[in-house]
Amino acid sequence: MATAASPHSILLKTPSTATPKAVFPVATRLPTAALKPISIRCAATTQIQDPRPPPPPPPAAAQERVCNFAAGPAVLPENVLLKAQSELYNWRGSGMSVMEMSHRGKEFSSIIQKAESDLRSLLEIPPEYAVLFLQGGATTQFAAVPLNLCRPDDPVDYLVTGSWGDKAFKEAQKYCKAKVVWSGKAEKYTKIPSFGDVEQDPDAKFLHICANETIHGVEFKNYPVPKNKSGLLVADMSSNFCSKPVDVSKFGVIYAGAQKNVGPSGVTIVIVRKDLIGNAQGITPVMLDYKIHADNASLYNTPPCYGIYMCGLVFEDLLEQGGLKEVEKKNKNKAELLYRTIDDSKGFYRCPVEASVRSLMNVPFTLEKSELEAEFIKEAAKEKMVQLKGHRSVGGMRASIYNAMPLAGVEKLVAFMRDFQARHA
Amino acid sequence: MATAASPHSILLKTPSTATPKAVFPVATRLPTAALKPISIRCAATTQIQDPRPPPPPPPAAAQERVCNFAAGPAVLPENVLLKAQSELYNWRGSGMSVMEMSHRGKEFSSIIQKAESDLRSLLEIPPEYAVLFLQGGATTQFAAVPLNLCRPDDPVDYLVTGSWGDKAFKEAQKYCKAKVVWSGKAEKYTKIPSFGDVEQDPDAKFLHICANETIHGVEFKNYPVPKNKSGLLVADMSSNFCSKPVDVSKFGVIYAGAQKNVGPSGVTIVIVRKDLIGNAQGITPVMLDYKIHADNASLYNTPPCYGIYMCGLVFEDLLEQGGLKEVEKKNKNKAELLYRTIDDSKGFYRCPVEASVRSLMNVPFTLEKSELEAEFIKEAAKEKMVQLKGHRSVGGMRASIYNAMPLAGVEKLVAFMRDFQARHA
Repeated sequence: MATAASPHSILLKTPSTATPKAVFPVATRLPTAALKPISIRCAATTQIQDPRPPPPPPPAAAQERVCNFAAGPAVLPENVLLKAQSELYNWRGSGMSVMEMSHRGKEFSSIIQKAESDLRSLLEIPPEYAVLFLQGGATTQFAAVPLNLCRPDDPVDYLVTGSWGDKAFKEAQKYCKAKVVWSGKAEKYTKIPSFGDVEQDPDAKFLHICANETIHGVEFKNYPVPKNKSGLLVADMSSNFCSKPVDVSKFGVIYAGAQKNVGPSGVTIVIVRKDLIGNAQGITPVMLDYKIHADNASLYNTPPCYGIYMCGLVFEDLLEQGGLKEVEKKNKNKAELLYRTIDDSKGFYRCPVEASVRSLMNVPFTLEKSELEAEFIKEAAKEKMVQLKGHRSVGGMRASIYNAMPLAGVEKLVAFMRDFQARHA
Repeated sequence: MATAASPHSILLKTPSTATPKAVFPVATRLPTAALKPISIRCAATTQIQDPRPPPPPPPAAAQERVCNFAAGPAVLPENVLLKAQSELYNWRGSGMSVMEMSHRGKEFSSIIQKAESDLRSLLEIPPEYAVLFLQGGATTQFAAVPLNLCRPDDPVDYLVTGSWGDKAFKEAQKYCKAKVVWSGKAEKYTKIPSFGDVEQDPDAKFLHICANETIHGVEFKNYPVPKNKSGLLVADMSSNFCSKPVDVSKFGVIYAGAQKNVGPSGVTIVIVRKDLIGNAQGITPVMLDYKIHADNASLYNTPPCYGIYMCGLVFEDLLEQGGLKEVEKKNKNKAELLYRTIDDSKGFYRCPVEASVRSLMNVPFTLEKSELEAEFIKEAAKEKMVQLKGHRSVGGMRASIYNAMPLAGVEKLVAFMRDFQARHA
């Protein structure tokens, strides 16, 4: 890359492999004696090598991410997504994707074992509980729980605080004598009763609750003591799983679809006390039998491997954040900000849920001027805040603010809400 | 970065942001007149900027991929994996991952609809069939099929050609009067009978086959005509799904776990004639009821979204290859090469399966000198050929050579096999 030199410039001749073309003017001080002009040429003999490692793949710029308030599947932690992306083609030198691994090979074994171990740490799961990674969603567990725990004639109590508890009850009726001992339906699922007011059946095999109602935004802050002879409490924790600490020992069974707080859809986690396993009804499909899965460490058949891997990355991330106490603090902070914005709006925004049971995860609200709701959704979407429409059975708006929704996302939403109100007062 | 200069070297002073440290000796020719020595320092005033765009993520070098003969989950097409990797963080400008999408949003709707549409094209599925994307594996279908198609007292015929058909039979016994009308067990599952020899029950509700036995490597090349009054044939096609054309109209139900030929684990595809839907037994869990899923286009609850997306990428890839006729040609070519190597080995290698029913997908074989099998596995693994161990219930070796196993992989295996034989003759 030599070019004509002016007397006082030195041109760097670089090896042809290096693209940069650099011209370096030279500051010279020469004696002013009458000398012949000289020209000097620099010849680089050392090849320029960039010692830096190749840059990582350019992440989609942060500004390209939407602010995703979907109720599930839902936002996942960015660092988890980037990590999954970087190792999708070749997982940690194995020469294959997690999606291609034999579920019985050593690589995937390490993945599922670490996922279970991390989950046990997060929730402080006592050793007398089995942890199962299953397919079929919470909806399959609506059947699996009574099939595994009951005889067809066993009474079972359902405390129904929203539509998911109601669905669980309806499915259970096929397999046991399920009974609703309390329902919030008359008040449009905006409350949880004082537990003393709930008349439980002492002969019931278990009491079932939905710990967090995704559609109605109603969350148990503490749990009823089961008054049945087995002393069993069962909870669907799909939409607040791993959002806060839980005393697992209070429960006989906890189940959760992963696709709210802990992973993509297709994985359902079941935490079941081991002594409850092994008496499934004869009509139980093998894939719904806890014993089959517990005896085979969730590998009776091919588990949902990639989903389990993603859950494992999320569990690691939660532990790195300091565990569920820390996560709960963040969730309380985010939720408080949003509910305060609603409550301080002088009725422009309204959340119908009784204050003491408002969910940290799902925040339903309406506009006093309901005719503005479509515009609200549309304008929010223009600002890249999406999935704010309320569930089709309820209408209005709903912001789901799971673990992975950053505080900045909620701040953006409340700023928008205040501005929207100001423009439509 | 200035350092002491020798008279004839010029040191480049670069801005501190640029890491490369370059020293450029200078070739000089100075007049030999008695001049004072001069020293010249180059001061770079132009910052070195690399005008090249950031390099694309370095793909894992082709040589880093192992040759993966696993039976499922199994090898996936490289271009599919790379595409999935590139869009994992941000799918096509949506600002979110497929794993974060609401299953009812427009983005995922487009994904699942395209996947279904492409599958219908691939298999030429007639419009009177529903296509369902479910969770639960083929193992759940072992229960779902009789629950949906039969009353508990209905006789049903099972033609058992391997352990998967046997498992389907055992599960079905909970839900119908299942009967084995032929079993290959006595001959260690190495045959398929002449269909005329199989005595079917004219009152049977359906005849069930496993179209390709993954463990035993036995594949139906044509199908029995059902002799029952409903005229229904049902097939588990998990391990040869989309490996060759199929006349769907011959079947009442086809089901397949995706994790052999078409995707990761966690997705089960069910193709069911619509008129068979709607009479599920009362004890059927809602998640096993074809009507619920058909009425809701697989969105009754949250489907396994990422798995469906991956299947969609695979379907696109199969169509780009020219469809299932082309894919079948490749599979026949690969299988022929491997079986010929086995058959030409003068007994060093043996495949027990009767030649006319040898699977194009799963090739079980043993070594005459069985004491060499561990060494075979070990040496193959050194050559990056993995998962060649036979199923634990059978022993020996097994090479699964699904669609995504390239011909080069099979060529590599047979070269190794010939060399291994030469060294151990």
